[in-house]
Amino acid sequence: MARRYDSRTTIFSPEGRLYQVEYAMEAISNAGAAIGCLAKDGVVLIAEKKITSKLLDTHAVGVRREKMYKLDEHIACAVAGMTADANILINLCRLNAQRYYFSYQVGEQQRQRDGRRNPAERRPFGVSLLYAGWDEHYGWQLYQSDPSGNYGGWKAVAIGNGHAAAQNLLKTEYKEGLGVDEAVSLMVKVLAKSMDSSLAVDKVELATVTRDEASGKVSFKVFTAAELQPLLDAANAEKEAADK
Amino acid sequence: MARRYDSRTTIFSPEGRLYQVEYAMEAISNAGAAIGCLAKDGVVLIAEKKITSKLLDTHAVGVRREKMYKLDEHIACAVAGMTADANILINLCRLNAQRYYFSYQVGEQQRQRDGRRNPAERRPFGVSLLYAGWDEHYGWQLYQSDPSGNYGGWKAVAIGNGHAAAQNLLKTEYKEGLGVDEAVSLMVKVLAKSMDSSLAVDKVELATVTRDEASGKVSFKVFTAAELQPLLDAANAEKEAADK
Amino acid sequence: MARRYDSRTTIFSPEGRLYQVEYAMEAISNAGAAIGCLAKDGVVLIAEKKITSKLLDTHAVGVRREKMYKLDEHIACAVAGMTADANILINLCRLNAQRYYFSYQVGEQQRQRDGRRNPAERRPFGVSLLYAGWDEHYGWQLYQSDPSGNYGGWKAVAIGNGHAAAQNLLKTEYKEGLGVDEAVSLMVKVLAKSMDSSLAVDKVELATVTRDEASGKVSFKVFTAAELQPLLDAANAEKEAADK
Amino acid sequence: MARRYDSRTTIFSPEGRLYQVEYAMEAISNAGAAIGCLAKDGVVLIAEKKITSKLLDTHAVGVRREKMYKLDEHIACAVAGMTADANILINLCRLNAQRYYFSYQVGEQQRQRDGRRNPAERRPFGVSLLYAGWDEHYGWQLYQSDPSGNYGGWKAVAIGNGHAAAQNLLKTEYKEGLGVDEAVSLMVKVLAKSMDSSLAVDKVELATVTRDEASGKVSFKVFTAAELQPLLDAANAEKEAADK
Amino acid sequence: MARRYDSRTTIFSPEGRLYQVEYAMEAISNAGAAIGCLAKDGVVLIAEKKITSKLLDTHAVGVRREKMYKLDEHIACAVAGMTADANILINLCRLNAQRYYFSYQVGEQQRQRDGRRNPAERRPFGVSLLYAGWDEHYGWQLYQSDPSGNYGGWKAVAIGNGHAAAQNLLKTEYKEGLGVDEAVSLMVKVLAKSMDSSLAVDKVELATVTRDEASGKVSFKVFTAAELQPLLDAANAEKEAADK
Amino acid sequence: MARRYDSRTTIFSPEGRLYQVEYAMEAISNAGAAIGCLAKDGVVLIAEKKITSKLLDTHAVGVRREKMYKLDEHIACAVAGMTADANILINLCRLNAQRYYFSYQVGEQQRQRDGRRNPAERRPFGVSLLYAGWDEHYGWQLYQSDPSGNYGGWKAVAIGNGHAAAQNLLKTEYKEGLGVDEAVSLMVKVLAKSMDSSLAVDKVELATVTRDEASGKVSFKVFTAAELQPLLDAANAEKEAADK
Amino acid sequence: MARRYDSRTTIFSPEGRLYQVEYAMEAISNAGAAIGCLAKDGVVLIAEKKITSKLLDTHAVGVRREKMYKLDEHIACAVAGMTADANILINLCRLNAQRYYFSYQVGEQQRQRDGRRNPAERRPFGVSLLYAGWDEHYGWQLYQSDPSGNYGGWKAVAIGNGHAAAQNLLKTEYKEGLGVDEAVSLMVKVLAKSMDSSLAVDKVELATVTRDEASGKVSFKVFTAAELQPLLDAANAEKEAADK
Repeated sequence: MARRYDSRTTIFSPEGRLYQVEYAMEAISNAGAAIGCLAKDGVVLIAEKKITSKLLDTHAVGVRREKMYKLDEHIACAVAGMTADANILINLCRLNAQRYYFSYQVGEQQRQRDGRRNPAERRPFGVSLLYAGWDEHYGWQLYQSDPSGNYGGWKAVAIGNGHAAAQNLLKTEYKEGLGVDEAVSLMVKVLAKSMDSSLAVDKVELATVTRDEASGKVSFKVFTAAELQPLLDAANAEKEAADK
Repeated sequence: MARRYDSRTTIFSPEGRLYQVEYAMEAISNAGAAIGCLAKDGVVLIAEKKITSKLLDTHAVGVRREKMYKLDEHIACAVAGMTADANILINLCRLNAQRYYFSYQVGEQQRQRDGRRNPAERRPFGVSLLYAGWDEHYGWQLYQSDPSGNYGGWKAVAIGNGHAAAQNLLKTEYKEGLGVDEAVSLMVKVLAKSMDSSLAVDKVELATVTRDEASGKVSFKVFTAAELQPLLDAANAEKEAADK
Repeated sequence: MARRYDSRTTIFSPEGRLYQVEYAMEAISNAGAAIGCLAKDGVVLIAEKKITSKLLDTHAVGVRREKMYKLDEHIACAVAGMTADANILINLCRLNAQRYYFSYQVGEQQRQRDGRRNPAERRPFGVSLLYAGWDEHYGWQLYQSDPSGNYGGWKAVAIGNGHAAAQNLLKTEYKEGLGVDEAVSLMVKVLAKSMDSSLAVDKVELATVTRDEASGKVSFKVFTAAELQPLLDAANAEKEAADK
Repeated sequence: MARRYDSRTTIFSPEGRLYQVEYAMEAISNAGAAIGCLAKDGVVLIAEKKITSKLLDTHAVGVRREKMYKLDEHIACAVAGMTADANILINLCRLNAQRYYFSYQVGEQQRQRDGRRNPAERRPFGVSLLYAGWDEHYGWQLYQSDPSGNYGGWKAVAIGNGHAAAQNLLKTEYKEGLGVDEAVSLMVKVLAKSMDSSLAVDKVELATVTRDEASGKVSFKVFTAAELQPLLDAANAEKEAADK
Repeated sequence: MARRYDSRTTIFSPEGRLYQVEYAMEAISNAGAAIGCLAKDGVVLIAEKKITSKLLDTHAVGVRREKMYKLDEHIACAVAGMTADANILINLCRLNAQRYYFSYQVGEQQRQRDGRRNPAERRPFGVSLLYAGWDEHYGWQLYQSDPSGNYGGWKAVAIGNGHAAAQNLLKTEYKEGLGVDEAVSLMVKVLAKSMDSSLAVDKVELATVTRDEASGKVSFKVFTAAELQPLLDAANAEKEAADK
Repeated sequence: MARRYDSRTTIFSPEGRLYQVEYAMEAISNAGAAIGCLAKDGVVLIAEKKITSKLLDTHAVGVRREKMYKLDEHIACAVAGMTADANILINLCRLNAQRYYFSYQVGEQQRQRDGRRNPAERRPFGVSLLYAGWDEHYGWQLYQSDPSGNYGGWKAVAIGNGHAAAQNLLKTEYKEGLGVDEAVSLMVKVLAKSMDSSLAVDKVELATVTRDEASGKVSFKVFTAAELQPLLDAANAEKEAADK
Repeated sequence: MARRYDSRTTIFSPEGRLYQVEYAMEAISNAGAAIGCLAKDGVVLIAEKKITSKLLDTHAVGVRREKMYKLDEHIACAVAGMTADANILINLCRLNAQRYYFSYQVGEQQRQRDGRRNPAERRPFGVSLLYAGWDEHYGWQLYQSDPSGNYGGWKAVAIGNGHAAAQNLLKTEYKEGLGVDEAVSLMVKVLAKSMDSSLAVDKVELATVTRDEASGKVSFKVFTAAELQPLLDAANAEKEAADK
């Protein structure tokens, strides 16, 4: 039955489903995971890189971007899915961020992003995004969007490969009011459990969005390999212990 | 027979039907219900949220928006169906609301909304909406629109999952001239009967549009969990009693 | 044979037919009837509403509009068919009415309306309309248009469900020179005979376009339930008597 | 063979035919006839109306327009085929007539009309037209155009239902140099012979384009029922006599 | 094999053929012939009209245009094929002729004409044209263009019905350096031989482009019936003699 | 397998091929050959004309253009393939040549030409071109382009009918540093060997691009029949001798 | 299964794959290889040319461009895949490079390049590119992009024919901190191993991007045959020795 209704995004199936949106979701399920959570003093994002090679230039611009992107001074994101589609959405977000900086804050930009052209017009974007940011009205925020055009605010959320398992783990492990450092540990732990192999520096990206209390400046920080290694070592050890 | 005419919205079947519109209706039938009713001093909207998780950030902007949206100072709405489609329609409504504020009041904006491009051009929006508002000429009003582009004014109306049963219940239970408090009780009761499980705070959104007699200011209020809990407890108790 | 030529409005069948137009006609045949007639001092429109519910808000703006619409000071209309399509056409008419008020009068606006884009470009509008109006040159006028883009002036005409039977009845019953009151009675009688059940206030809309001789002001009046009830009672009684 | 090439106007069949144009011709063959002829002092147009009803408002604007249209001060036309398509072409002609009044006269406007967009782009217009007019350079003129985009000047010509028979009759009966009165008689006679039933006032439209010698003013006149009746009576009598 | 590649002009068949162009050529093969030749003091064009009727208005504008068209002061053309397509091309030529009068002469306009939009975009024009003109640089010229977009300069050339036979006859009969009068005789003779029936005044169009040596003015002349008759009589007599 | 991917230029086959481009190449293989080579003091182009007739006007503008075209003062070209497509490309080249004369020289214009719209958008142009030119930076140059959008610089190259055989001959016969006169002889010899019949003046076009050392002026010269005849006679004699 | 989803780039297969992108990748796998690596003082690019002929004009502009292109003063690239597609991308890059010279440096231009229109709109570009450049912030950089729209920074990377084998070789042979001269040797060696036959001057292109320490000027240098020969000889000798 699906056959007749699944090749165009502009038609409903008799059951009221849009199959192309569902297939795009499938593309994301196979992509490297991305997980985020709110802390009382920031937001933490972690992600699994699928493309690794010692020949990759870890100092180059493009590499740092595989999973983590800064959108403007107040907001960053992590992606799971088709990188090229992510680039398009990210550029749109940046453009809007610059235009509406003063009148609209983080939360409003979310809404703007969804004002993009009707998803019925072409194939859906094959990518989910996590947005981490801060604004004056709502403080720290974490949003998730997907190919259907839906989005929502979360305390902790996972997308991509193994997202269901990670989400379950988050339900039991996440505690409100934790600090950024605790959140970082939690994120590493959850990612470690949802990956088949042990965590390696070249397969993980970790970032935080925090705010300097004095200046009020919001910063987006991507962890270096040196900063990341001890965190991964700890998580791997813990995982190994648990597996025994 | 339907087969040859159901994959494009731009053609009539020999019986004069537009199948894509009917399939979009189907999408709405599976979505979380939304119910509204007129009171003598306001309008009450209630809705069932399908996506619930203790990890959802109930303080975030996006969450409050799953089912209830403020359109401008005089009008709010509740949705049933595809959220992304709802967002597009709601943004259009807001834009129109700002443009025509002075010359057109609530009722007229309804008409404007339908001035959107011919539904024949692309797939219908897979969403129904309830609009609650007030204007000087017609007082309190409640409208419902659906994928066919139709809309109408109601004293009490239900859309989405179980709407037929809820509508029947409204026919016997709704009484003209009730106040907002009574209407709130009625809405909770009707939603309780049309849901399979008992009412939980994280699965229900309840809102009112009321007006301060002195200042004439119209307010849109979404009930907090604390405000909602006793109402749901009462309804669950009543339902349980009735089921025995 | 029809099969190969019936899914696009842009092709002729070998016999020179446009099937999509014919299918749109079919959609109208199943819609609630609308009937109109000219009187010496006005025009009368009556229509059968298919959607009725005691929960419908009969004071709301949208409800009064199910079948009867005011286009501008001089012209009103009744519709049979897809309401959403009717709304689009009616908005176009209103726009034109405002633009051309002084240079073109009622009759001319008819022509403008048909200057819409070639019906070959997209599916035909699935609706027929009756236009009732007055202008200085031609006095009282009643027009009918349909999905083919045709329109014509009538003394009395019926569209929608049972239009053929109603039209036959009009042929024998309509008398030139009758007044608005007699025309109202005739309209109620004809609608009564073409409906399966007896006439009920919530299923009938009745309206007149008349003109104040003194001021020259043209008015569009929709009958209230109170005004309508005695007329329906009389017609029901007469029908019952006739059926015996 | 035709099957594969007949559903789009943009392709040739292997024999170099455009089937959609031919199907449009078919639509015209079933339409009420229109016949015209040149006289030394004017042009005469006659046509058979297919839609007749005593309920049609013969005083209304739209009715007079079923077959005869005035394009500007110098030119009028009669149509056979789809009325809605005719309306589009006629509006285009009127627009051009106003724009080019001074620089181009009747003959030139013909050319302009054919400068419309390539008939290959969408379905052909399902209508043929007869144009009757006068200009300073060529005097009285009668043109005929059809769905292929062709047009030509004629002394006497018939389109629509029974056009071949009528054209044959014109060949034997038409005499150059006849006056408008004689031409009127001829037109009535030819139409009478090509119709199955006898001529009735509500089924015939007759019009002349003539010119006042003194003022040089060109007038388009549509015959009233009163003017038409004696002409039809005579023709019916003659036909009856001939049939015996 | 042809089947899969012949319904769109935008695709090549595996052998590198464009079938729609070939089918358009077929349309021209069935059209009335047009023949032209260069003389030392002008160019002569002759053509066979397929639509003849004593009711055609030979004084009207449109009629003179069936096969012969003046493009501007320096250039005229004859057509074979679909008249409506010819009209479009001719209007384009006229427009270009006015724009580029001073900077580009006859030869260059040819090139301009071919700068029309890529024939791949829609169905080819179903018409061939002969262009006859003069300019300062190249003197008298005769070009032929066809649906493929090709064109070339000829001393003598035939298009349309029977063009192959006519072209063969031209090869043996055409002599360089002949004068316009001789060329006129040759054209009549060749057309006579390539037509089934004898030449009749209402079936032939004959035109010359010549130049007044004194003023340098180039003229386009279409022969009247009176001028044409003796030429046709002579040719018919000669043909009859030859056939014996 | 090819079947499913060969009717649109916008899709890849599973092997990564674009079939429409390959079919367009096929069209060129059947077209009259064009051959070019670099000399130390110029470039020589020769081509075989397929359309010959003693009735072709060898003095007319269009004829000289069958295979050889001047693009601007510094560059000329020869074509093999569909003439109408060649005309479009040549007009684009000329336009660009005029625009960029000063800033870009010959080589750069090549690049510009390829900046045309993505060949994926419509059917590829069914033509290959040889470009011969001179500029200050690179001296004499000879380029070849084809339907895939590729182009390259050559010392000697052949396109069209028999191009593979001609290219092989060029490999053994071409010697760097030859003068224009020697190159002319070589071109005639290679064309003679690759044609079935002996060379005739009306079937061959020969042209050179050379430069006056004193003035620096670049000239494009097309050989007249008188200049061509002795060259062809010599080549025919040589070929005949070789064939014995 | 693939069949139904592989002919349009605008649809996902049920597994979330875009087949047209994968087919485009296939086109690249058959193209001549291109390999690049970072050195501490520059970037080296090498490539295998598939089209070789002694008749190719190695001094011409177009030839040097088969595999290597200069984009602006700071960046060059090597391509593998369809040359015509590469030209389009390269022209876009150049345009952007000129526009954004001052505000955006090398890394940013990468991002710009990906801001091109959604790859869903038409067939993907059948080409991969290696970009080699320098900027103030990130120093020497080497990027690779492919038909999916992805790109990334590499220390050493291979695309095109045999890229997997070459990439493996790079993993073992590449050493960080090597100088441009060592990198040149490495590139020649890796290309030699991945080609079937021994390296020949006319089949290899080698280029470096380096920077003059004193002036800060970045230069793009393509090796001449004379410079290339000894390098190839050495590599061939080494390969031969290794093969024994």
